[in-house]
Amino acid sequence: MTISLGELAVRFGCELRGDPDALVDSVATLGEAHDRAVAFLADSRHRRALERTRAGAVVLDPDSAAGCPVAALVCPNPRATYARIAAALYPTVRPAPGIHPSAVISPEARVDPTAHVGPLAVVGAHCVIGARAVVGPHCSLAEQARVDEEAWLVARVTLGPGVVVGARTLVHPGAVIGSDGFGFAADAGAWVKVPQVGSVRIGPDVEIGANTTIDRGAIDDTVIEEGVKLDNLIQVGHNVRIGAHTAVAGCTGISGSTVIGRHCMIGGAVSIGGWLTICDGVTVTGTTMVSRSITAPGVYSSGIPLEEARVWRRLVARFKRLSSLHDRLTALERMLGRHDDAEGAHDD
Amino acid sequence: MTISLGELAVRFGCELRGDPDALVDSVATLGEAHDRAVAFLADSRHRRALERTRAGAVVLDPDSAAGCPVAALVCPNPRATYARIAAALYPTVRPAPGIHPSAVISPEARVDPTAHVGPLAVVGAHCVIGARAVVGPHCSLAEQARVDEEAWLVARVTLGPGVVVGARTLVHPGAVIGSDGFGFAADAGAWVKVPQVGSVRIGPDVEIGANTTIDRGAIDDTVIEEGVKLDNLIQVGHNVRIGAHTAVAGCTGISGSTVIGRHCMIGGAVSIGGWLTICDGVTVTGTTMVSRSITAPGVYSSGIPLEEARVWRRLVARFKRLSSLHDRLTALERMLGRHDDAEGAHDD
Amino acid sequence: MTISLGELAVRFGCELRGDPDALVDSVATLGEAHDRAVAFLADSRHRRALERTRAGAVVLDPDSAAGCPVAALVCPNPRATYARIAAALYPTVRPAPGIHPSAVISPEARVDPTAHVGPLAVVGAHCVIGARAVVGPHCSLAEQARVDEEAWLVARVTLGPGVVVGARTLVHPGAVIGSDGFGFAADAGAWVKVPQVGSVRIGPDVEIGANTTIDRGAIDDTVIEEGVKLDNLIQVGHNVRIGAHTAVAGCTGISGSTVIGRHCMIGGAVSIGGWLTICDGVTVTGTTMVSRSITAPGVYSSGIPLEEARVWRRLVARFKRLSSLHDRLTALERMLGRHDDAEGAHDD
Repeated sequence: MTISLGELAVRFGCELRGDPDALVDSVATLGEAHDRAVAFLADSRHRRALERTRAGAVVLDPDSAAGCPVAALVCPNPRATYARIAAALYPTVRPAPGIHPSAVISPEARVDPTAHVGPLAVVGAHCVIGARAVVGPHCSLAEQARVDEEAWLVARVTLGPGVVVGARTLVHPGAVIGSDGFGFAADAGAWVKVPQVGSVRIGPDVEIGANTTIDRGAIDDTVIEEGVKLDNLIQVGHNVRIGAHTAVAGCTGISGSTVIGRHCMIGGAVSIGGWLTICDGVTVTGTTMVSRSITAPGVYSSGIPLEEARVWRRLVARFKRLSSLHDRLTALERMLGRHDDAEGAHDD
Repeated sequence: MTISLGELAVRFGCELRGDPDALVDSVATLGEAHDRAVAFLADSRHRRALERTRAGAVVLDPDSAAGCPVAALVCPNPRATYARIAAALYPTVRPAPGIHPSAVISPEARVDPTAHVGPLAVVGAHCVIGARAVVGPHCSLAEQARVDEEAWLVARVTLGPGVVVGARTLVHPGAVIGSDGFGFAADAGAWVKVPQVGSVRIGPDVEIGANTTIDRGAIDDTVIEEGVKLDNLIQVGHNVRIGAHTAVAGCTGISGSTVIGRHCMIGGAVSIGGWLTICDGVTVTGTTMVSRSITAPGVYSSGIPLEEARVWRRLVARFKRLSSLHDRLTALERMLGRHDDAEGAHDD
Repeated sequence: MTISLGELAVRFGCELRGDPDALVDSVATLGEAHDRAVAFLADSRHRRALERTRAGAVVLDPDSAAGCPVAALVCPNPRATYARIAAALYPTVRPAPGIHPSAVISPEARVDPTAHVGPLAVVGAHCVIGARAVVGPHCSLAEQARVDEEAWLVARVTLGPGVVVGARTLVHPGAVIGSDGFGFAADAGAWVKVPQVGSVRIGPDVEIGANTTIDRGAIDDTVIEEGVKLDNLIQVGHNVRIGAHTAVAGCTGISGSTVIGRHCMIGGAVSIGGWLTICDGVTVTGTTMVSRSITAPGVYSSGIPLEEARVWRRLVARFKRLSSLHDRLTALERMLGRHDDAEGAHDD
């Protein structure tokens, strides 16, 4: 879509420094942009690219505007404003209403006439598909699943029985929502399956990444609140609750019955144990192991950055002998009359 | 389904303390249960919830029974007994026998007349589907796959050529069983693919989680023995063998040719190297890196719990200077005439 | 397929020590091989199995040939030669050209007459399927996707809009290529979606594992260069570039905008941060956290091998008190007049 800089400035609340009649039709990086493309600067690391850019306009904050050699769309939050401008330049094309003839729809399902059901989708008994919702190709919805208005299952999404997907929620291919939780009771050397009779409720404005899995609750439901963003290949165990507007990066696993607060940011490849509570406003950096509850907002970590393997092997060997290091130090302290035996006691 | 407490006690071997004619029809947590619901107590952490429960009955062990304010179903293993009671209250409804008209079945496949093949499933040449087995919507079975009696592929399960799924085994959506193993030979700066000519044999009474992947063997088969339980998003490499009744939690990866014993419990996000042997009865806690074989039953770990990021960064900095700490201590010991040079020698 | 040892030796450049007219028809491990099977020895750990083998022939290097009790196919790179011999003995059977009647093909798509489109596949508008390409059952290709000659999407592969899959590339079931990247801008306590307008370009001779996900670029494309091998359950973020002939093992996550060089080997369950650069020829061992760029070829690690849990808990406790250990040592040094205050200063 082609839009003038003047219109962009008005619609998205920017101060325009440049020609309001100049037209743009695309987005690009600072380095690649031509004169019909909008770029953005959200990080001062890219300031040198700004100086050389040939973009039609750059979205940036007041502090950076002086260094901009082309038209500037100045605003306090360039990344968010860029996101909205890009959405205007690349408007989403929703598939036309209607049910593809190859889809298999239960006669007991209710599909809104403005909804789209794509080729080879399966919609089970008593499912409800809301207004303007999209059920893409190869999606399969078990009985009583519900897809609210304008929700979009891109392709090949599986919903288990009774799963609810909220309004405007976007689910990427391969996601499985509502598979059985991992619940077994040990009995006489084998496992007895604990029936998983809850379901999953996904709030509105959620996004769920490709091949992410969210298990149904054992008794109550698993709950993903409004505005949550889940990346790809995340595992969410049964009866987890994720609070509104929390974002979780890829490859992270969240064990059963854990409650994560609102406005948290969980990095990639994080492992979160079961039956924990993480309060609102917590950031967990990538690869951290969360094995206890977190009761205060803040940033938490336990990942160790890489070293050259030769150096690393020695560090690990030292680490594995920490007890000996400790004992040698204590012996020296004792010899020099410095050791506090009370400390030594709680140390072991 | 509605059942009397008396019948539950008789069928599942509980001592009933309460009215045998009282009826229940559902399960619930201790906190949410109403008077037609069965709850259970398997962990003394929830004893306060027990005191306040309004459940119709609680499944618990003799030690906890005294504190139960409502009817009690007393038994030695409350979790396993609860699982069986829940299965009785929520009986599994198997889909009716027959092949959905939209399924694509090779004329050379053999589907038992009591089996169910769901909408839009694909069953390849020479596949065999056993009695009362269920092949759900969007499943795709390559040639010569075999699904034994009462096995259930929930939806969108992919079986590669020759894969065998044992009796009563349950496979959740998105699982891929029998994809090629990751086998390549380096040659002149590129990779030559090693043909993966084995297959996968899954025993009876196994459960396989959503989006879990199990590779076919390079030469011999990959083998999952009876009663194994695999959670979601697990990767099982080629020629792995997992022993009977072992359970593996989500996001764990098991590299090729590793053999895991029987009755092991492998936590979530564990990484297990290739060509290792883990004996029977091993527990590995979450996020552990298993880089050597384990020859004695027991519990093994290598995960480090989180800290506030500020504290953590300092710990990592200290860790990275462990060698310097060690050297400084050795210097002090030498100065004080305490250093054992033999130890110093093997230390470096 | 049955082939004589003489023909194998000629076709694959081996020195044959044995009867050129002896016939083989299969591959097997040294231990299981019968006299019509070819085995190989690529690792001196298996030399004892060599001594006892009953294989029809063994592929091995000159150093090992003397210990071979049966016919030997001697060559410098036994693993690569074995791979080629196995491919000859088990020739790939490509499905016949043509479009299965149950597939849903856009009238605006272009499918080469020599290509195969399997049952229940969906091919969107303006897609191009090249000569002898295979689009397996349940694959779904969004508009403008392109599958080059002889590429093979095994089953249930999803390609997003505009994704290109190079010639001879093999994609395993469940892979999702071209889902939206994880891009959001924080704004007033919620997330604004950043439109992901790039796509994914996969080079020729690539292999992509089961349930692996590769996100489309935010602005430019995500790029996987020729000959790259990706295992199962890998997450590749938006705008990542992976250099030619690099191999990545399962369960690894690569965050957005990171560039990995050529001929790298990335182990399993590795976590790679965003906006990093890894140069050519780097090996990263399993479970490593890569949080900074790597500028020199070599081997890098940060995984800590397991210990018995009891030992491990004590090590973690010691580790968590490293600062105290350090302070105690510094105090001793000060007392003995050994402390270098400059070091102490940069230490904190």
